[in-house]
Amino acid sequence: MSELYLDGKKIYYEIHGQAGEVLILLNGIMMTTNSWTNFIPALSRNNRLVLVDFFDQGRSERLGPGYDHQIQIQLLGALFRQLEAEMGVGRFVLAGLSYGGNVALQAALAFPERVKRLILANSAARTSSWLRNVGDGWNEVAKSGNGRSYYLTAIPVIYSTHFFEAQAAWMEQREETLVAYFSQKEVLERMIRLTDSSRHYNVEDRLGEIQCPTLILSSSEDALVPVTEQELLHKGIKNSSHVVIRGSGHASMYEFPEAFAGLIAGFAGLGDEEIHP
Amino acid sequence: MSELYLDGKKIYYEIHGQAGEVLILLNGIMMTTNSWTNFIPALSRNNRLVLVDFFDQGRSERLGPGYDHQIQIQLLGALFRQLEAEMGVGRFVLAGLSYGGNVALQAALAFPERVKRLILANSAARTSSWLRNVGDGWNEVAKSGNGRSYYLTAIPVIYSTHFFEAQAAWMEQREETLVAYFSQKEVLERMIRLTDSSRHYNVEDRLGEIQCPTLILSSSEDALVPVTEQELLHKGIKNSSHVVIRGSGHASMYEFPEAFAGLIAGFAGLGDEEIHP
Amino acid sequence: MSELYLDGKKIYYEIHGQAGEVLILLNGIMMTTNSWTNFIPALSRNNRLVLVDFFDQGRSERLGPGYDHQIQIQLLGALFRQLEAEMGVGRFVLAGLSYGGNVALQAALAFPERVKRLILANSAARTSSWLRNVGDGWNEVAKSGNGRSYYLTAIPVIYSTHFFEAQAAWMEQREETLVAYFSQKEVLERMIRLTDSSRHYNVEDRLGEIQCPTLILSSSEDALVPVTEQELLHKGIKNSSHVVIRGSGHASMYEFPEAFAGLIAGFAGLGDEEIHP
Amino acid sequence: MSELYLDGKKIYYEIHGQAGEVLILLNGIMMTTNSWTNFIPALSRNNRLVLVDFFDQGRSERLGPGYDHQIQIQLLGALFRQLEAEMGVGRFVLAGLSYGGNVALQAALAFPERVKRLILANSAARTSSWLRNVGDGWNEVAKSGNGRSYYLTAIPVIYSTHFFEAQAAWMEQREETLVAYFSQKEVLERMIRLTDSSRHYNVEDRLGEIQCPTLILSSSEDALVPVTEQELLHKGIKNSSHVVIRGSGHASMYEFPEAFAGLIAGFAGLGDEEIHP
Repeated sequence: MSELYLDGKKIYYEIHGQAGEVLILLNGIMMTTNSWTNFIPALSRNNRLVLVDFFDQGRSERLGPGYDHQIQIQLLGALFRQLEAEMGVGRFVLAGLSYGGNVALQAALAFPERVKRLILANSAARTSSWLRNVGDGWNEVAKSGNGRSYYLTAIPVIYSTHFFEAQAAWMEQREETLVAYFSQKEVLERMIRLTDSSRHYNVEDRLGEIQCPTLILSSSEDALVPVTEQELLHKGIKNSSHVVIRGSGHASMYEFPEAFAGLIAGFAGLGDEEIHP
Repeated sequence: MSELYLDGKKIYYEIHGQAGEVLILLNGIMMTTNSWTNFIPALSRNNRLVLVDFFDQGRSERLGPGYDHQIQIQLLGALFRQLEAEMGVGRFVLAGLSYGGNVALQAALAFPERVKRLILANSAARTSSWLRNVGDGWNEVAKSGNGRSYYLTAIPVIYSTHFFEAQAAWMEQREETLVAYFSQKEVLERMIRLTDSSRHYNVEDRLGEIQCPTLILSSSEDALVPVTEQELLHKGIKNSSHVVIRGSGHASMYEFPEAFAGLIAGFAGLGDEEIHP
Repeated sequence: MSELYLDGKKIYYEIHGQAGEVLILLNGIMMTTNSWTNFIPALSRNNRLVLVDFFDQGRSERLGPGYDHQIQIQLLGALFRQLEAEMGVGRFVLAGLSYGGNVALQAALAFPERVKRLILANSAARTSSWLRNVGDGWNEVAKSGNGRSYYLTAIPVIYSTHFFEAQAAWMEQREETLVAYFSQKEVLERMIRLTDSSRHYNVEDRLGEIQCPTLILSSSEDALVPVTEQELLHKGIKNSSHVVIRGSGHASMYEFPEAFAGLIAGFAGLGDEEIHP
Repeated sequence: MSELYLDGKKIYYEIHGQAGEVLILLNGIMMTTNSWTNFIPALSRNNRLVLVDFFDQGRSERLGPGYDHQIQIQLLGALFRQLEAEMGVGRFVLAGLSYGGNVALQAALAFPERVKRLILANSAARTSSWLRNVGDGWNEVAKSGNGRSYYLTAIPVIYSTHFFEAQAAWMEQREETLVAYFSQKEVLERMIRLTDSSRHYNVEDRLGEIQCPTLILSSSEDALVPVTEQELLHKGIKNSSHVVIRGSGHASMYEFPEAFAGLIAGFAGLGDEEIHP
């Protein structure tokens, strides 16, 4: 429940846990620090967990249109400095889901000395022209202001068919909540800006620069950022492992919370330990 | 370039080729007989190829709202009788892509004595609640009447990321054509009706009835009808093989036309030949 | 039931069928022309099927030790000339399983003008050091002269677990036949020579030379030449499609005979037809 | 470096680490407690790690022929009692690789109150008839007493092609060590007994009894216990997640040590924490 400021813009963050590696966990595009509430005990048990809202998310500052990932990377730079001052630790485990993973990867390129380990869940090295078109479709619908239409266009696609059916009651609850949420003009405007901020993202040519141990986490049923995209990450990042949660859709942390949390807590917890068989 | 009538409703069909098995090829939801033009030589070389427009497609009759697959199955029943009268052949190879495969499967259940072999490409045994929501999203957008919005919502998702990027010029041409097409109110109304006709489709419990040799064709990158759905078909249909086109999206016939055509022509061409190793 | 001679060495071949593309089908390492008996009707229905024994296989000449794939490629060169003289056709569809696919690929490099289409089933661009070790293991066991030991070492691994269990009676019959077969010293000596002939096979760097339409056929459960090897073929050969038979082991033609035969007959039957969607 | 006795038979075990969940890690068939040396720091950082040699492994008692998994399950029962007395903890995280996973699964069925979490790496619910034949092949070769032959038959198959090539120097070192090891009659006799002890293993029908959170870990290139076997585990065990290490062979802990260690340490570390998204 803390905040810091970058050029006058508020950055909301939280620290949980007492000891262990400092694990910074970055939100997907439609998430906030609140989305992780049920994960806090598991992720702060053997690590110190830092949650943060990106600009235009949750309790962090709203921005005007026209920004790209760069501003979120700067947000992380400011957070790193703040955590060092506050916790006395200068190197972090950086984990991100989807949008959060894409920003994490770029932060590891911008501040390599800050990143001890990197965890990229359901992320990619670039916004493919395919994904750009999908995002354009979401934004077109967002402009219509129809919250239910936006829900139907952007949400089911992030779940696997199996989860969607097996968790029908949970999904219905979620539909109700999200249709109400997306029916707010201000929310859809933020969704448009955040989606647009990914438009020109591409670090394919820079993957070879990543030196830190990296875990790439995919979902076999991810219809939005398919396994083939994570395969590019694995090929490009030398010191990486690639793990696929079988049967999961894009929202891996909701579909298989224990595999997700176990993977992240465990890989983070390795810290500076290198293993040579 | 022929037509027949079912209860006064026009059914448009074409016959190509001189000899061999009679292969009836059924369209996906947004396709027409015209979509197959470039496939005709390959598919009518060793087989006799029959193309047909479903109701609300191409040159067949437009319907009012509220129908389901049943009317399309009846269309096939009428086509079978017509082909028997015209060609002297009473058993057919039935192949369908997506919507067409779903109708083909039900026709094989309704008229088992008519179906010699069955080919289900990018099809499923049911409309999952997930896919129903995706379709509802398309229809919400269709109701807005925005052709470009409909294109962005419904079309990129049927291609693989790789194809979309590698065939950028072809996709741009396609976008131009389809945005114009979907900007016609009458077209979007048909899309809504056809999509809605799949709403309650489910023959999961009847797969065990299928006796004829069946080829199930999937695409590894199919984001709309994922391989897991075809796996259900394979498990349910005793005498079936399951083949996956690697790297392809839902529109397998556009992404890998030779693999698609070779598979269909070849499996059709086996006719009554059974192979025991 | 014909033969021709290359430098005095007998080459046994058979021609089946009356019309259509000339499809030359090449054996896997432990197969002979007899292995295809039950496939002849299906594969010669719309194509003319040519079967042939490699040197050290079936009714072709036995060789001394120390040869590599080169002699089998020359065998194909001689066969091409013979077929041209006999059938008046100079361009062929070349299909091969495993060892046969590896030789087919090299023949397409050596005689590009002879190869109209190429079908590589359960094949690879090279003998990896891993596969070389596996082959060395087989040969060590072969040297012990224990037919049952050789069977257990080399045969189960080419089937999927599912097939092995589901076709238990067929497998038991096969075990009986093959243990007797492998108990002949002369047979094991040929197995050793054929296996050794693949030792230095590697055309990875030459895949870009292949111009003809190519179908790459994998099996999802192939423990001997895994799908990753066929993925290398697909990446290297421009004009290729990659199709995976789901649930099949290395011996795809026995596990899913109809999918196998349909794919080969159909892709062969496309002939010079090119399809542009 | 401790030992305990079951009916006079020595059981060797080690405890590492100061605090956290008690994680018992069980060896694969050809491993010993020594195989984990380089994993100890990572696995005992946030957990207390217990290593143990099964009977006929490492420093535990040698057995006569004719035993099955039951004796190893009893070994675990004795270990549980000993650890409770020694550490004051009565519920454990049980993790096992291959053979070790199979025994772990059965121990969770025999002593459900003892098992807090279960991790099954490259394991199965049964010894399929296919795997039984593969094991019979190994044993036939073992009986010949040829260490190099046994190495070539049993070892390369447990690595992926990629690892085998990329880690050629490591593999050569390993070949030297293992050929010497397998050239000892006593070692091969133990291998035969351990392999035979799996012959009748099958708990497919009892998977529904497992209540504790379970992580199933597969390798995409596992040629010995393919992903399809782990899929059976996942379908049978209600409260399970299924994670695949992409590109890895059967020996996942050697091929991707950090993913392996991270997964196990992290999932173990969740302890009694349940996560509901």
